[in-house]
Amino acid sequence: MTGGTRPSEFEARLAAIAAATERMLDSLLSPAILPGETVRPARFLEAMRYASLDGGKRFRPFLTIETARLLGAEGEGVLRAAAAVEMVHCYSLVHDDLPALDNDDLRRGRPTTHKAFGEATAILVGDGLLTYAFDVTADPATHKDPGVRIALVLALARAAGLGGMIGGQVLDLEAEQAREPHEAGAVTKLQAMKTGALLHYAVEAGAILGRADAGVRSALSRYGRALGAAFQVADDILDVEADALALGKRAGKDAGRNKATLVAALGIDAARERRDSLVAAAIAALDSFPQGTKATVLKEAARFVAARNH
Amino acid sequence: MTGGTRPSEFEARLAAIAAATERMLDSLLSPAILPGETVRPARFLEAMRYASLDGGKRFRPFLTIETARLLGAEGEGVLRAAAAVEMVHCYSLVHDDLPALDNDDLRRGRPTTHKAFGEATAILVGDGLLTYAFDVTADPATHKDPGVRIALVLALARAAGLGGMIGGQVLDLEAEQAREPHEAGAVTKLQAMKTGALLHYAVEAGAILGRADAGVRSALSRYGRALGAAFQVADDILDVEADALALGKRAGKDAGRNKATLVAALGIDAARERRDSLVAAAIAALDSFPQGTKATVLKEAARFVAARNH
Repeated sequence: MTGGTRPSEFEARLAAIAAATERMLDSLLSPAILPGETVRPARFLEAMRYASLDGGKRFRPFLTIETARLLGAEGEGVLRAAAAVEMVHCYSLVHDDLPALDNDDLRRGRPTTHKAFGEATAILVGDGLLTYAFDVTADPATHKDPGVRIALVLALARAAGLGGMIGGQVLDLEAEQAREPHEAGAVTKLQAMKTGALLHYAVEAGAILGRADAGVRSALSRYGRALGAAFQVADDILDVEADALALGKRAGKDAGRNKATLVAALGIDAARERRDSLVAAAIAALDSFPQGTKATVLKEAARFVAARNH
Repeated sequence: MTGGTRPSEFEARLAAIAAATERMLDSLLSPAILPGETVRPARFLEAMRYASLDGGKRFRPFLTIETARLLGAEGEGVLRAAAAVEMVHCYSLVHDDLPALDNDDLRRGRPTTHKAFGEATAILVGDGLLTYAFDVTADPATHKDPGVRIALVLALARAAGLGGMIGGQVLDLEAEQAREPHEAGAVTKLQAMKTGALLHYAVEAGAILGRADAGVRSALSRYGRALGAAFQVADDILDVEADALALGKRAGKDAGRNKATLVAALGIDAARERRDSLVAAAIAALDSFPQGTKATVLKEAARFVAARNH
């Protein structure tokens, strides 16, 4: 794939990768992973599948797969690593939706996992998806080189941990409990951790699987960081603009809860400018990329993040 | 350390390793792991420390450290791997205690994490400890060989996952909701997963760090499995015998909730016999061990499991 990917071509590619990810998740979450013959917690597996096989855009797996492919790596192992990123994403949604946290009843137009299966099961489903993501990533089927697999595991643990997703979630929780409005710098930091870190990892995983050298890895890292930030600002803007029907969840809830968003901190116009300059920065990071126009699809991905309205 | 470890010597050793584990956890959970300079979720770290630095016996780290030492491996890396096992154990306790699961207010005589810090924080503390355990295990500081680290990560993910701890927790949840009494075979299976898998991993981690050959590894695996089973039966017996004061939690609660226990399934006398024969099996597994009497301390550990009354 070289230059000139048209939006429609990009969308088709996104859809194809989403379908491949869905198939991989379906296979990884088959009854074969259940223990023993006599006792099979079949309903629990159903809940894990419910939380994962939701037909989403699979944007994180897309980033992993396209980054790896840009560097010449493809196949089952890449798809496994990509599916593992998605499991971590899905686990975070299941736990975020819990009554003690965001208390959301709907996600993508369906009852959230705890609404459909109960709170105890939802807690364990999240724990199970997170744990299984490490299992899948560490498994020899993902890459024959233990050095590649351990690099993936370590980067994933850091992206998902206190310095990344969980840290961001903690800050978000604290921000919501605060009464005063949130300052843009703190919001940016929070979002870089809560949403940005895992998106960054999705790109990084592709770089690790494609054995990128230091220069390429650094360019991809700048791309991943700008993309992750753009993604979350776009999400904040979306929340303000969208109505409940289009989003499949209660829109406007961020403002109602003193959520730390960049729209609240900067206003909608400045937030849109921020989003656009982050998209430009993501694209610019790829201009320094030796493989030049081969990175077109990743540039399209950055534009897609800003333009998505679903 | 060769043969003839007296009980008092064993206890001293257990206490010394518990203290070393405590120091390692204290260091791993220092403010240095928090992100950035401007925003430090200090109260969250406090909650993670509350959930981990509880002065427990640290029996899992003990198993890892003594198994590794038997095979000639010791030092900071072994202690890190051992502390990571304990983090996984602590995460499981925090999530198990949640209102949606066991709804426990006390653990070891102190308010449970959600009682002390709120439910949202407790959910994230559990997630954080689990994720950080993989981070610590995968970190080059744990072992210089990526092959050793990835073997640890994979074994830990499997022990903690659907085929192990989480699977056991799911079965336990289902058992509790059932109205009929539980059959001994199903209880044994459940316990092997819920408690046994992580104890087995604790031994396995020592074997991996000590680069045990296939024969030694298999003997240690049989030891770990029998020990894990003995541990849980002993726990069931303890629950029946103990009063609330001694246990620091509401005793007798297992029976009150139709918990799947071997005492309920077999009666107290048969449960005691089962415990003793499992201890004997654990010890016998080490008789086939080439290093012979060097394994004395692990044999003492098996006896300790049956005898503990605290």
